[in-house]
Amino acid sequence: MIARDATGDLMTYELFYWPGIQGRAEFVRLALEEAGARYLDMAAVPEAQGGGVPAILRVLGTSGVRRPPFAPPILRAGRQLIAQTPNILLFLGGPLKLAPRDEPGRLWTHQLALTILDFYVEIFDTHHPLGDGYAYEEQKAEAKRRTRYFLAVRLPKFLGYFERVLELNGSRRPWMVGARLSYADLSMAQVIAGLKYAFPSASARTLRRRPRLRALHQAVFDRPRIARYAASGRRLDFNNEDLFRHYPELDR
Amino acid sequence: MIARDATGDLMTYELFYWPGIQGRAEFVRLALEEAGARYLDMAAVPEAQGGGVPAILRVLGTSGVRRPPFAPPILRAGRQLIAQTPNILLFLGGPLKLAPRDEPGRLWTHQLALTILDFYVEIFDTHHPLGDGYAYEEQKAEAKRRTRYFLAVRLPKFLGYFERVLELNGSRRPWMVGARLSYADLSMAQVIAGLKYAFPSASARTLRRRPRLRALHQAVFDRPRIARYAASGRRLDFNNEDLFRHYPELDR
Repeated sequence: MIARDATGDLMTYELFYWPGIQGRAEFVRLALEEAGARYLDMAAVPEAQGGGVPAILRVLGTSGVRRPPFAPPILRAGRQLIAQTPNILLFLGGPLKLAPRDEPGRLWTHQLALTILDFYVEIFDTHHPLGDGYAYEEQKAEAKRRTRYFLAVRLPKFLGYFERVLELNGSRRPWMVGARLSYADLSMAQVIAGLKYAFPSASARTLRRRPRLRALHQAVFDRPRIARYAASGRRLDFNNEDLFRHYPELDR
Repeated sequence: MIARDATGDLMTYELFYWPGIQGRAEFVRLALEEAGARYLDMAAVPEAQGGGVPAILRVLGTSGVRRPPFAPPILRAGRQLIAQTPNILLFLGGPLKLAPRDEPGRLWTHQLALTILDFYVEIFDTHHPLGDGYAYEEQKAEAKRRTRYFLAVRLPKFLGYFERVLELNGSRRPWMVGARLSYADLSMAQVIAGLKYAFPSASARTLRRRPRLRALHQAVFDRPRIARYAASGRRLDFNNEDLFRHYPELDR
């Protein structure tokens, strides 16, 4: 269950992401936590001990890096720097045993993670249709229009799709890929948690007819390690600086 | 150079995408064309011969599929259906010899493809900030605001990043990953072509100080097979139903 580096030593991963929000890093954290992997969440490491925002800026700005990341989240694994959330999960899937070993299974899990990415990008767009160059307050009217279409058309389309994936998988277990938990399930549960925070009323309505997604969400947050992580205080609370935001005026 | 299936036979891929636009499928087409792979572009196959829109709807709606795709582009390779553009390229990279063989190199190429995806999603958002639930004409004012920030901040940020990737790669060849052409280069060239179409004035200005990106774009479209494809009439023209759109009012 524990990942080892090329020399067989226990690997300590370092995760670089902005402090104060779950953001895209949370998809990576859930995978690391579920696997019981050793990692340092650099945003939580004091600046005096080499963590915090300066650590992130250092990784982004280092001139010695031959393959520079564009943006956090960034995972350091030994001498390798890996960026882009689905790419990090693809990389971790094997050593953390959160993806099938066969190539078609690995690709399918990755395909699900990419569709989940499309989904949460659209959720972010509901409150920031003009991008993050403008504050929410500068785009409230636009956010309303975008959210109206999202809740009426896109939300049921995405949830309907993932419910169908669960149904077609046909396992007695609540997971999307065969009978084993994968990082796609962890990411899916995180998006459902985010939706319940952002749109309590609309998401309750839409999830009513998606029993398999509700069961998946429940099963993930019931996992002993995930439950311990959520209770530890290390999992940050959802908040309105984050990917998922709760503006009551959008949750009609 | 030619991909073979598990039995050693020549593989004929089938590509499913909406007709009339390049869209996300073009990133896949460029890879298939550069490699000289055998493939059927199902949108170009007459309906009477099993192609066209009905073929796409069939793939999306088939009840016999255990791992259903969410949306096109979709690649059929033997009995496997693969969706999500970066996932398709990840799958094709090996057999088409458009990605390094070593694992860190494969992940780095994929990471670049995912950052290119982020980039073209933001380019799409310039003309459709409220999503495709509304016509461009219904979101012209919003498109102007989003585009203003995109051209001032995001466009130079993305192009500056990819120029730096080329510089750090330090090859005499114009590519991003070592000395060999990869699918990331093909995708990058396609985005530059799209930018030149969508924002002729702003992109000329921003590309002036990015000589390596200009050279990459030129080198890709000078490749014999890509040039032959572009001249064949099979490569569709850019148009205003597509991912990259030219609205003069946005290209200030």
